[in-house]
Amino acid sequence: MRRTRFDEWDCSIARSVDILGDWWTPMVIRSALMGARRFEHFTDGLGIPRNVLTERLNRLVDEGIMVKVEYQDRPVRYEYRLTEKGIGLYPVIVSIMEWGNRWLEWDDEGPPVQLVDRTTGEPVEPILVDARTGLPLDARATRAVYVRGDGSRPPVDT
Amino acid sequence: MRRTRFDEWDCSIARSVDILGDWWTPMVIRSALMGARRFEHFTDGLGIPRNVLTERLNRLVDEGIMVKVEYQDRPVRYEYRLTEKGIGLYPVIVSIMEWGNRWLEWDDEGPPVQLVDRTTGEPVEPILVDARTGLPLDARATRAVYVRGDGSRPPVDT
Repeated sequence: MRRTRFDEWDCSIARSVDILGDWWTPMVIRSALMGARRFEHFTDGLGIPRNVLTERLNRLVDEGIMVKVEYQDRPVRYEYRLTEKGIGLYPVIVSIMEWGNRWLEWDDEGPPVQLVDRTTGEPVEPILVDARTGLPLDARATRAVYVRGDGSRPPVDT
Repeated sequence: MRRTRFDEWDCSIARSVDILGDWWTPMVIRSALMGARRFEHFTDGLGIPRNVLTERLNRLVDEGIMVKVEYQDRPVRYEYRLTEKGIGLYPVIVSIMEWGNRWLEWDDEGPPVQLVDRTTGEPVEPILVDARTGLPLDARATRAVYVRGDGSRPPVDT
């Protein structure tokens, strides 16, 4: 069954989700951000079926999120590296992790992963702010406006 | 075909993606953050099939992301409101939008939506920072460490 496509919507979220929403893809990007590059890094770490991983990596290369780079020539072997566009997904993955850490139910031990400063090892506290003011961004203090079109706008409450 | 489940993984991203990754779900949450509450707001705005919307809203209620509230009693009608856990997804949705605005290809008109300050109407510039320092968070300056377990860790590069 072909899944619903969102890539033709005039909406950043729909078009991004069309890429990121393939099952496994966010986990592949998360692994890449944590240092995975080679095919077996992804299969070992995620337990993802090889055919699915191949399909996902190809899509990520097609979308310019990863590049396929030869790292050995006898035999030829390739690894997959995030591009700047791929590294640009860091805030998305971190925001998902923070939400899960904060809101999902964990046993007494809490969530397994903590994001730390690479130099000091100190835990970091990711927060979304307005770069103009440095103040935290709040759902209730902002709204999304259409600078053009309204094709994907939900109707307002009446 | 049953899709891959991630809800039993010991990983915030996997468990969050298990909820958010259902096709349509990020669009439903985006619409809710923009003010949609009633069934027809979602169907009109998104063109989502009614049976799919019902299934997605029920899951979001089960997960504590939305609550179903009666807003009229003759006939009885319900609307769906985001909980604090649901509003907590704002940084995730904003991060996805910002990435799409920045990295996807748009024609000369650019992306359709801009996030603005609700009071002043000025565009905001969402950025992820470390709350301790106020400095932008950078993929290369942080790493994820396992405070317990390693069940979902990708192997390190050797």
